[in-house]
Amino acid sequence: MEEVFTHFFRPRGVVVVGASGDPAKLGYALTRNLINSGYEGGIHLVNPKGGTLLGLPLYRTIQEIPDPVDLAVILVPAPAVPESLTQCGKRGIPAAIIATGGFRETGAEGAALEKECLAVANQYHMRLIGPNCIGLIDTHLPLDTTFLQPPPPTPGEVAFVSHSGAVCAAIIDWIRGQGFGLSYLVSLGNQVDVNETDVLPAVAADKHTKVVTLYMESVSNGRRFVRTAAETSKNTPLVALKVGRFESGRKAAASHTGALAGAEVAFEAAFRRAGVLRATTTEEMFQWARALAWCPVPKGPKVAVLTNAGGPGVTAADAIESFGLQLAQLSAKTEAGLKTLLPPAASLHDPVDMLASATPEQYAGCLKILLEDDGVDNVLVILPPPPPSTAGAVVKAMLPQIQNSDKPVVFALMGERMIQEAMELLRAAKVPEYRFPEASASALAALYRRSEILKRLQEPEIVPVNLETKKFHEDFETIHSGEWLPADAAFDLLQAYGIPGLKLALAATDQEAGKLAGELGFPLVLKVASADISHKSDVGGVLLNIGSVTEAIDGFNIVVDNARKANPTARIDGVHLQRMLPNGQDVITGVIQDAQFGPLVMFGSGGVEVEGLKDVAFALAPLTASDGEYLLEGTWAGRKLRGFRNLPPADRHAVLDTLFRLAQLAAEFPELAEVEINPLRALADGKGVFAVDVRIRKG
Amino acid sequence: MEEVFTHFFRPRGVVVVGASGDPAKLGYALTRNLINSGYEGGIHLVNPKGGTLLGLPLYRTIQEIPDPVDLAVILVPAPAVPESLTQCGKRGIPAAIIATGGFRETGAEGAALEKECLAVANQYHMRLIGPNCIGLIDTHLPLDTTFLQPPPPTPGEVAFVSHSGAVCAAIIDWIRGQGFGLSYLVSLGNQVDVNETDVLPAVAADKHTKVVTLYMESVSNGRRFVRTAAETSKNTPLVALKVGRFESGRKAAASHTGALAGAEVAFEAAFRRAGVLRATTTEEMFQWARALAWCPVPKGPKVAVLTNAGGPGVTAADAIESFGLQLAQLSAKTEAGLKTLLPPAASLHDPVDMLASATPEQYAGCLKILLEDDGVDNVLVILPPPPPSTAGAVVKAMLPQIQNSDKPVVFALMGERMIQEAMELLRAAKVPEYRFPEASASALAALYRRSEILKRLQEPEIVPVNLETKKFHEDFETIHSGEWLPADAAFDLLQAYGIPGLKLALAATDQEAGKLAGELGFPLVLKVASADISHKSDVGGVLLNIGSVTEAIDGFNIVVDNARKANPTARIDGVHLQRMLPNGQDVITGVIQDAQFGPLVMFGSGGVEVEGLKDVAFALAPLTASDGEYLLEGTWAGRKLRGFRNLPPADRHAVLDTLFRLAQLAAEFPELAEVEINPLRALADGKGVFAVDVRIRKG
Repeated sequence: MEEVFTHFFRPRGVVVVGASGDPAKLGYALTRNLINSGYEGGIHLVNPKGGTLLGLPLYRTIQEIPDPVDLAVILVPAPAVPESLTQCGKRGIPAAIIATGGFRETGAEGAALEKECLAVANQYHMRLIGPNCIGLIDTHLPLDTTFLQPPPPTPGEVAFVSHSGAVCAAIIDWIRGQGFGLSYLVSLGNQVDVNETDVLPAVAADKHTKVVTLYMESVSNGRRFVRTAAETSKNTPLVALKVGRFESGRKAAASHTGALAGAEVAFEAAFRRAGVLRATTTEEMFQWARALAWCPVPKGPKVAVLTNAGGPGVTAADAIESFGLQLAQLSAKTEAGLKTLLPPAASLHDPVDMLASATPEQYAGCLKILLEDDGVDNVLVILPPPPPSTAGAVVKAMLPQIQNSDKPVVFALMGERMIQEAMELLRAAKVPEYRFPEASASALAALYRRSEILKRLQEPEIVPVNLETKKFHEDFETIHSGEWLPADAAFDLLQAYGIPGLKLALAATDQEAGKLAGELGFPLVLKVASADISHKSDVGGVLLNIGSVTEAIDGFNIVVDNARKANPTARIDGVHLQRMLPNGQDVITGVIQDAQFGPLVMFGSGGVEVEGLKDVAFALAPLTASDGEYLLEGTWAGRKLRGFRNLPPADRHAVLDTLFRLAQLAAEFPELAEVEINPLRALADGKGVFAVDVRIRKG
Repeated sequence: MEEVFTHFFRPRGVVVVGASGDPAKLGYALTRNLINSGYEGGIHLVNPKGGTLLGLPLYRTIQEIPDPVDLAVILVPAPAVPESLTQCGKRGIPAAIIATGGFRETGAEGAALEKECLAVANQYHMRLIGPNCIGLIDTHLPLDTTFLQPPPPTPGEVAFVSHSGAVCAAIIDWIRGQGFGLSYLVSLGNQVDVNETDVLPAVAADKHTKVVTLYMESVSNGRRFVRTAAETSKNTPLVALKVGRFESGRKAAASHTGALAGAEVAFEAAFRRAGVLRATTTEEMFQWARALAWCPVPKGPKVAVLTNAGGPGVTAADAIESFGLQLAQLSAKTEAGLKTLLPPAASLHDPVDMLASATPEQYAGCLKILLEDDGVDNVLVILPPPPPSTAGAVVKAMLPQIQNSDKPVVFALMGERMIQEAMELLRAAKVPEYRFPEASASALAALYRRSEILKRLQEPEIVPVNLETKKFHEDFETIHSGEWLPADAAFDLLQAYGIPGLKLALAATDQEAGKLAGELGFPLVLKVASADISHKSDVGGVLLNIGSVTEAIDGFNIVVDNARKANPTARIDGVHLQRMLPNGQDVITGVIQDAQFGPLVMFGSGGVEVEGLKDVAFALAPLTASDGEYLLEGTWAGRKLRGFRNLPPADRHAVLDTLFRLAQLAAEFPELAEVEINPLRALADGKGVFAVDVRIRKG
């Protein structure tokens, strides 16, 4: 942990600036919570009136506080905050939480006040959390700097970092009924200094924290967040709820790529690269977090469902498939084992239906057999009320099997009153239970995605070429900001990165035609270059299927001669050469600069489809191997490169390679606002790709 | 209500066949529940041993029971059930619930026993619910024929009809904690006789039932379900969870249409036509049901969010947009009114953020103003703990406004302990509350969808043409089952329904060419019909752009002469005429027969895209106006008919008309297994459509 966060998270002493004896005031509540939290360091209270509060002296000034003190929690009225901070600075306090509201969130005046706070902090090398925040809670240290109504959160393994204070208050109260607790809670408020990225490593490094949940309204520095989160999630699962999806809006842009990008796809790509599981609702984030905190990481997506009733078993099977998991194929040995335990009418395939008569022993025995099957990665146990034995007895019988296994087991404990004992037993044993099979399957899907993330986080970014790009850089500098590159320059830039383009080259002489032909490759088309001749093929001014340098040289003279004969007075500039492309699959790929996360590579269906169907995917540049696969497998444009029905396969490998090269280009030219190759034609397998058209705009 | 259901749902007397004095047996539990339910009719118990049970005599035989008795609940062992039914039949009992299990669900022997039960019932004109079911509960009559553990469900407004008994037991227990009750519960078991469609009208007709929820694993008769559900949902909202989505599987089929159809799309189309709201999870079904039972139907999709904290407001806004609702545009009057009540830093736009200091009076005052705004159709109130006043006081202040309004108001009551009083107040007042803004928005979306359903249910099915189809029917009879119609016959069938096709017509003489040309329309292409001439255009055997009958007659002679000159020995059959189609948008449309629901019309993107992108929608034939709109607006193929970017608009009206015609064809020819028009070319706006190719297979 950075030293500064030790001051926040492991302070040797805390001072409350604005402690109040009035129980109706937040300064009272904060003091009470801090004392009640059981915090073992020095607790110091400041109030200019003096006196005592809850058995502690009220110092009149910050100067008077005895050593050691690392953290100030400030709750004086907003206009008085800069002065309090100054006093803290002079006193040598390295960290402060400004709980007070009335800053940037209230308008320009508050924003100015906030800037003043930051200036003071910088002067004294202090770090600030807030203002306009709830502060932080460490349930294990313990430490509670909030003014929230008691009781405080139950100690647990889930850390919660939030941009919203109101959501903190709600979550503390809500999870009380959910059977799990918090390790940390950090409310960041206006983030004048410390932001979500800053606290992430510190919170994750805590030994009690098994998973970090994030309620995010924005990101402070996109790329830094990605780096930090990726590093953090190697050891600790991260789950985020990013809100403000629809607020961000999509700006009209000149290209398809631009129109399709926007804050949302960038966040999506960033979370993917950083290994952050993205939840779609608040509840889902915490239901996943519980499973991530308590369960081992599964080896795969195969789920065995163990039930005593058909209906919920079918519901579970549906949910398993809809979340991208699979029902297990049980081995013959497993089925034989189950058969010895169950009545003849029981179903021995997944979902395993033991029938309504299932006893605790049958539940436990079948679970043991399923957990021993190599084809089973996870077990989802369904327990609807009332089993012939109580749900509690069933759980008691199963717990030893669950605790001895390295495979995740989650429960759908269906009901309310009749499952209370079972629920409490499972919560005490840290086995995730949900009310319905759908939520249980969703939790298993989160665990499986975590296993995939752990693999992805090992991957390096792919840099397929290492070229002398300086030349293009110099050309590039002559282009004004916001302008499009001339077509030739754009194709040259692609070519420098090994992406072949369908250039139109002009040869002034037959020898030049031969040279250019050698560079462009074959077959070629030759076309007389003359503005004065409109129907070029009618006069023999076009030659198709030029297959060699010699043919190109001869061809030059033929088309020029034909043109001269037809129109002796025409001005002839020479001959245009262009590769003739065979049929293939046309896709679109490009690069866009996101204001938060920098360059993103885009891939999808070309033409009008790309916008209408949104068959498009984005990833951060440069790409990892799995980013590349994601761009292809996440789009129909990419999937059909393998061929589909009567559509022959195209050169998927070359397309993938192009994406890596384009990503490198994007990463090396941050000045590029947009690159769009539209279409990129993927030829038959093994024949490569061509950028048929390209547009590049400088930012 | 059908008279038979009066016997089930309003019996004048009930007999328990298999009442047991052993508290461990279900026959005891059932007797206890029936007595404890408070059922006011005669309760009679049958057990061959005689004696008394819970204060009532145990009759040795069914014959001995005194009048009146309408309903028997049978819980004797499976092999004894047919005999018990026979005795009931002889006794003149018109209705029986067979709670006993051990029938079809256990294999062939049980299935035979089940058939025997049905035969007995038919002999005596009895109706059966079950076997292998939990029976039924009417919380208001009251009546409880189940053997479930007490307590029974709380009386309420939500009816639950279920194919799964285990889910019934779970739901009864679970909703106890959810703050709403059940009116009816019907567990259908193996449905040897009475099925989900049979009970629907009876359950919905009950005056206490405000919404019917359905847990469905299958449907007994698809079209009958659609008719009954559509009729029922005109008065009572229906919400269904259909499970077994992935089990049903998709059979490989000869056409795209076939490959894309399957039980799921048919259920989707059936629910749409029947006005059934389809939930994706069990929990969602009941959370929607509560709102549908308690709230008025909204006038529109516009939601005002009233909050005292920004974070949950943003979360609500995201959810509102993602569920297809809209944030409200508040009127100037509303904003002015809010301004007088709120501090300067409050947000007066939707979401209305009153800031953390919001009092009960502010909550109530702002709610009143929002409800009075014509631009507000619904209000979502967010209440995170702890407000400066307790959540309970806030709710108390708001309730009068909510109860005086004809607009839905739902709450996101965030927390657990701190919101208990508020929760109880809202539940008592029948105002839906959920823990998080996302679920609240989901409930509002269900209400809005209900308002749209009510409009749709008024629509007639569209039958655009009324043709003499008999001729085609006769042709049709000569085709063997499973065979494809010859191309000409298929085009003729389309043409009879007013769908023009790109037929290839053969003229043997110039006069015939003129006549056919007049029928086909212009422009035309003429092509010499000769198997001996392969490169027809090289010999002048093709003429394009024939624009009149005269040109067609002259053209016939030109191409035949040219062909004769080029190849004097060639056999010439005449001249083929075909319409020349201008460019347009190609789509695919077709008909498939679903085993459960009969003919479905399919519409989507043509070519390989239709399968790869699944840009396709289905609706039951014949179509209503909104079905037609759904097929177009639910697909990119349909949406882009209006034009998109540089893609010019196509004749959307003609495409829509074609769908109605195709639907009529499908409805009138149930023998059609598959129809596929691929592609259907939509020409420029006003220019109509052409079936370029069509395949029709007889079933």
